[in-house]
Amino acid sequence: MAKSQASTLDFDVSFAKDGLINQRVVLNSRPIGKPIVDNFRIEELPPSVPNDGQMLLKTLFLSLDPYMRGRMSDATSYAAPINVGLTMVGGTVSRVISSRHPGFNDGDLVVGMSGWQRFAVSDGSGLIKLDPNMSQPSLALGVLGMPGFTAYMGLLDIGKPQMGETVVVAAASGAVGSVVGQVARLKGCRVIGIAGGAEKCAYVINELGFDGCIDHRAADFPQELAAACYEGIDIYFEGVGGAVFDAVLPLLKTKARVPVCGLISSYNETALPKGPDRLSLLMRTIPTKRLTFKGFIIFDDYGDRFEEFQTQMSEWVRDEKVKFREDIIEGLPNAPAAFIGLLEGRNFGKLIVRVASE
Amino acid sequence: MAKSQASTLDFDVSFAKDGLINQRVVLNSRPIGKPIVDNFRIEELPPSVPNDGQMLLKTLFLSLDPYMRGRMSDATSYAAPINVGLTMVGGTVSRVISSRHPGFNDGDLVVGMSGWQRFAVSDGSGLIKLDPNMSQPSLALGVLGMPGFTAYMGLLDIGKPQMGETVVVAAASGAVGSVVGQVARLKGCRVIGIAGGAEKCAYVINELGFDGCIDHRAADFPQELAAACYEGIDIYFEGVGGAVFDAVLPLLKTKARVPVCGLISSYNETALPKGPDRLSLLMRTIPTKRLTFKGFIIFDDYGDRFEEFQTQMSEWVRDEKVKFREDIIEGLPNAPAAFIGLLEGRNFGKLIVRVASE
Repeated sequence: MAKSQASTLDFDVSFAKDGLINQRVVLNSRPIGKPIVDNFRIEELPPSVPNDGQMLLKTLFLSLDPYMRGRMSDATSYAAPINVGLTMVGGTVSRVISSRHPGFNDGDLVVGMSGWQRFAVSDGSGLIKLDPNMSQPSLALGVLGMPGFTAYMGLLDIGKPQMGETVVVAAASGAVGSVVGQVARLKGCRVIGIAGGAEKCAYVINELGFDGCIDHRAADFPQELAAACYEGIDIYFEGVGGAVFDAVLPLLKTKARVPVCGLISSYNETALPKGPDRLSLLMRTIPTKRLTFKGFIIFDDYGDRFEEFQTQMSEWVRDEKVKFREDIIEGLPNAPAAFIGLLEGRNFGKLIVRVASE
Repeated sequence: MAKSQASTLDFDVSFAKDGLINQRVVLNSRPIGKPIVDNFRIEELPPSVPNDGQMLLKTLFLSLDPYMRGRMSDATSYAAPINVGLTMVGGTVSRVISSRHPGFNDGDLVVGMSGWQRFAVSDGSGLIKLDPNMSQPSLALGVLGMPGFTAYMGLLDIGKPQMGETVVVAAASGAVGSVVGQVARLKGCRVIGIAGGAEKCAYVINELGFDGCIDHRAADFPQELAAACYEGIDIYFEGVGGAVFDAVLPLLKTKARVPVCGLISSYNETALPKGPDRLSLLMRTIPTKRLTFKGFIIFDDYGDRFEEFQTQMSEWVRDEKVKFREDIIEGLPNAPAAFIGLLEGRNFGKLIVRVASE
């Protein structure tokens, strides 16, 4: 995730300003297994006052993404864990409301990492300016932001899709998967999605234009996937793991590529699954089928290609070649429950919290 | 392995010729777990007679390599299994003794895939000519052949070693590992070998010039490896798996690369090891540490770069920058026992059978 963007100053010292009240969600305790609402705590206090070279940001939209689960644990993950008592991290679209920074004016619209809170002070590092009149700024957290960028680079740079190849995408109606599949279609691939439930599958086929979509809740899911991928799988975009990967592995073709951006199914695990131990099975399959598995963290690995991505994806979105769906939750206090639902696939589209309307 | 070289005509019809007797080792039965000598059978019969466009080859040296274990099973492996009753496959250095092929003359020295037999008929496809006066033609089966080529491409093209990085090599005194480590040293890396027993470890350090070598039979092997790799591992060249990989996995650094050319430890497995199931642990570590695992089959993936390899490696061998060690067994009938020993690490250096002295 966007570790390199996480430069918003932390919220140690608080001053009253214009009677504004900051509301923030902090990590109350580390989850054991699935997070529960008690792992979060809402706090209210006056926002910090920006010093020279700083600005106050008002959060409009907060992105909720699976990687945040990793940051709640103290086990090694993509990035350093959040300390208990500190604000949850998260990508945000914000309005600059009190700038003492020479490079930003009041009214500027920016995307950054303010975290789960209504106000944040920033020194500007890691912020990206948006068109202040952008009609739908939340897109900067979805199809035009980190998830879209993850999909774009993972598919194109690691997956290297070729005309006519079969691409399988898990969480196909989600923020990353929906873009992976549509871009793979634009590259001439046959694309099979995997999603949870008939409604999502219908959306993936009818709205996003995938060639097929299999419900991973179906009793005969592995057989259905095998039937849909009758020539095998050339690219599997991995973000899920678990039973989905188990069904994918035997279908991978010689020289298949597996970009790995995460493993949602494992985030809530408190112990390894029971045996047998299939680690050697996977390791043995790698040379036998000449497979490539490559993990990546989008801004760490591809930060220098964000502009290329934005230019291309904006064009595709404008031309409706890439469609998207947002699942917008109203109000910061609802973020914990929405996030818990995200890990269980209860969202339908890119999950975003509207923190303030302007 | 060299599937693309496996073009020597099969030995279906036999004719007497000049009173010569062909001796060959055929697959007598498929092994269950470790191969035993009864899985092989020695047959004697007159050699085939070459037709127009063919030649008779007399085997001088036969290479024994771990990949052959996979070909003895009917499970999916690198290549099609050998049918029971047919000649074991294998790389060979041969002398042309009765050419009716316009491109080859009697006396030519060639490397090919005659298999475990004293004579073979070939139509020339897949054969590579050697200098007929080459002083040590067996090198074409080791440091200058398939194993050296595997080491060279896996390390350089997949591993991409950078000055100062730490490279770990399993089976470090063997045909592939010895070359991986020495080339990594030439590229400015710190190289830690893993080998079985004090004698091999001493050779790896003193003769091959590795920075260290850990005995995988030591009780505290994981701790010793961690101490030797105090900055973590940037490249692990994988051909072994099992307890060696288990010790390597937690030491892999962010952005580590793992070329995978095989997995000897699993070749004799008849069932998966007991749990817990660490497949998800490995899959989760891939994005967390941004790892790359890439399997390859040398001639299939890099056939077009064999000449580049030969030119470079011949120079390094001539200048003694890359040293090698051969473990030469006398006589084809000893091949089965020697091969069984190879899978248990009983060889010391590139294992080769001298089938005929000239």
